[in-house]
Amino acid sequence: MTAEPTLADVGEFALIARIAEVVGVGPVAVGDIGVGDDAAVISLGRDPRVVATTDVLIEGRHFRRDWSSAYDIGRKAAAANLADLEAMGARPVSLLVAFAAPATTPVGFAVDVARGLVDEAASAGAVVSGGDTARADSISVTVTALGALDGRAPVLRSGARVADALYVTGTLGWSAAGLALLELDDPLLIERHRALIDAHCQARPPYGYGVAVAVAGATAMIDVSDGLLADLQHVLTASGVGADVAALASDEMVAAAARDLGVDPSVWMWGGGEDHALVFTMPPGVTPPAHVALRTLGTITAAPGIRIDGVLAEPLGFDHFVAT
Amino acid sequence: MTAEPTLADVGEFALIARIAEVVGVGPVAVGDIGVGDDAAVISLGRDPRVVATTDVLIEGRHFRRDWSSAYDIGRKAAAANLADLEAMGARPVSLLVAFAAPATTPVGFAVDVARGLVDEAASAGAVVSGGDTARADSISVTVTALGALDGRAPVLRSGARVADALYVTGTLGWSAAGLALLELDDPLLIERHRALIDAHCQARPPYGYGVAVAVAGATAMIDVSDGLLADLQHVLTASGVGADVAALASDEMVAAAARDLGVDPSVWMWGGGEDHALVFTMPPGVTPPAHVALRTLGTITAAPGIRIDGVLAEPLGFDHFVAT
Repeated sequence: MTAEPTLADVGEFALIARIAEVVGVGPVAVGDIGVGDDAAVISLGRDPRVVATTDVLIEGRHFRRDWSSAYDIGRKAAAANLADLEAMGARPVSLLVAFAAPATTPVGFAVDVARGLVDEAASAGAVVSGGDTARADSISVTVTALGALDGRAPVLRSGARVADALYVTGTLGWSAAGLALLELDDPLLIERHRALIDAHCQARPPYGYGVAVAVAGATAMIDVSDGLLADLQHVLTASGVGADVAALASDEMVAAAARDLGVDPSVWMWGGGEDHALVFTMPPGVTPPAHVALRTLGTITAAPGIRIDGVLAEPLGFDHFVAT
Repeated sequence: MTAEPTLADVGEFALIARIAEVVGVGPVAVGDIGVGDDAAVISLGRDPRVVATTDVLIEGRHFRRDWSSAYDIGRKAAAANLADLEAMGARPVSLLVAFAAPATTPVGFAVDVARGLVDEAASAGAVVSGGDTARADSISVTVTALGALDGRAPVLRSGARVADALYVTGTLGWSAAGLALLELDDPLLIERHRALIDAHCQARPPYGYGVAVAVAGATAMIDVSDGLLADLQHVLTASGVGADVAALASDEMVAAAARDLGVDPSVWMWGGGEDHALVFTMPPGVTPPAHVALRTLGTITAAPGIRIDGVLAEPLGFDHFVAT
């Protein structure tokens, strides 16, 4: 029996060739030049503005290998960035990936990360166009996502106006509930709430809805990565406004997990990050597109802060350097 | 006396605000939306193709904090990516940066990395448009560089044709000589060859020359990041050709250091990476722009491989996972 080959066994160039094979499986835009040259050339269509965002995922901080497969990690790294494009109302086009790992990492791990990246990109209509690999003490995946505006204005955090309606599309609290279940490590509960575990290990942003609500006239938008309360506050601060919102009923999945764990689900709903739901505002009288599954959160106000059923909410979010 | 504040002391959001201040010092393209929203919106001019590349620099692998200042590390991380754009004949426009570091890292360190990135970007005509920060066990800086083609075709590795002339612009062997001097750690030698040390800690790619030779009709181009021999071989392999080259005389700086260290400078010249010199080919009879300082390396041949003064060269390059 032969041990699985490691990155040190095959070397950087063979690793890149192997990853290029995987990436080649995905759809490649005609005329693009990707893996194998100094840089990728990516067509944005007709609009010469690129929407660009980057996020780094670090082992032990953003994922754990005993909880997430390499494929999951690839999907999660891609999703975090693709959701940022959606939150600008941009159409996802391309990902670039920097993968760092110890030399003892199995080649199959790197290839599975690449597969996850390619599949998640494809689910958002994008491709993987290039990247870099390096040796490091721990595993990290840094993704840069590039999107196109196709002639539209970007939807910024700063565009919310008094009396705008406030909406959210996508799941809330699923990733946080999944994390709580993983931390409890009870096999029965993990089996029972598998969908929440999966939602933590592989986020599922509402792809396509960012562009749809931008086209329909959204005035401001953000994706929930630090928690609904924290991310909504970013929009309100940038726009110089506040919000009146109603208490959020948790969906059946989250409510059931909260009952089993004996906790209040509203902490997951308001404080849980990484679901990458899209929070957006629309002027009064403007209707969101009918095909976008959403719930109404409330209304933008001149008074600053967030009032939940009239009670001013305390800040609740995640700080990567301060939080545990 | 108060200890210098760390990333844990100020938290992620304050750190980002502090970095945004630094980044704001640099030139910001009109209409761009950068740090502070979900993604940056970057104008490429009139050509809706973006040239994109990403590189990760890891502490202990690509830099050492006892050799390089935080400012140097920022410059080096930017240079590696900007040089890749130059090697495509692209005009550098924007950088995105993912910075990961332990919570105990001084805030001033992160800010100085940002200053280095901003200054290096400015020297290539680009700006820093956005980024991400995360807590990690060691420091890494991942930069994605975006460039514009302004209607030109990109200059690929695969475009070299038989009888094309082969040129190089930029320094060769300086970074490798600087590294050898740092490893020897002799204060007198370090003082005497300060320019080579600086070249190792802060690369100086020949900005602007990539676009200039692209406009003049370069058929293939690459930047020297793994070593002249290894990178030239990438061009030859991609183009399905070989090259006859002449032995390279080392410049005075490199020759003096080689004498002091009692080594053959040709190993630095042919094998040293990270100078980010540009190697390019031009059709016979086409003259490179007069303002580009260059030397002629040789001629492209139908016979594969690299012959130095008629002798077939052995591969000599750097593999991040296999090399020491």
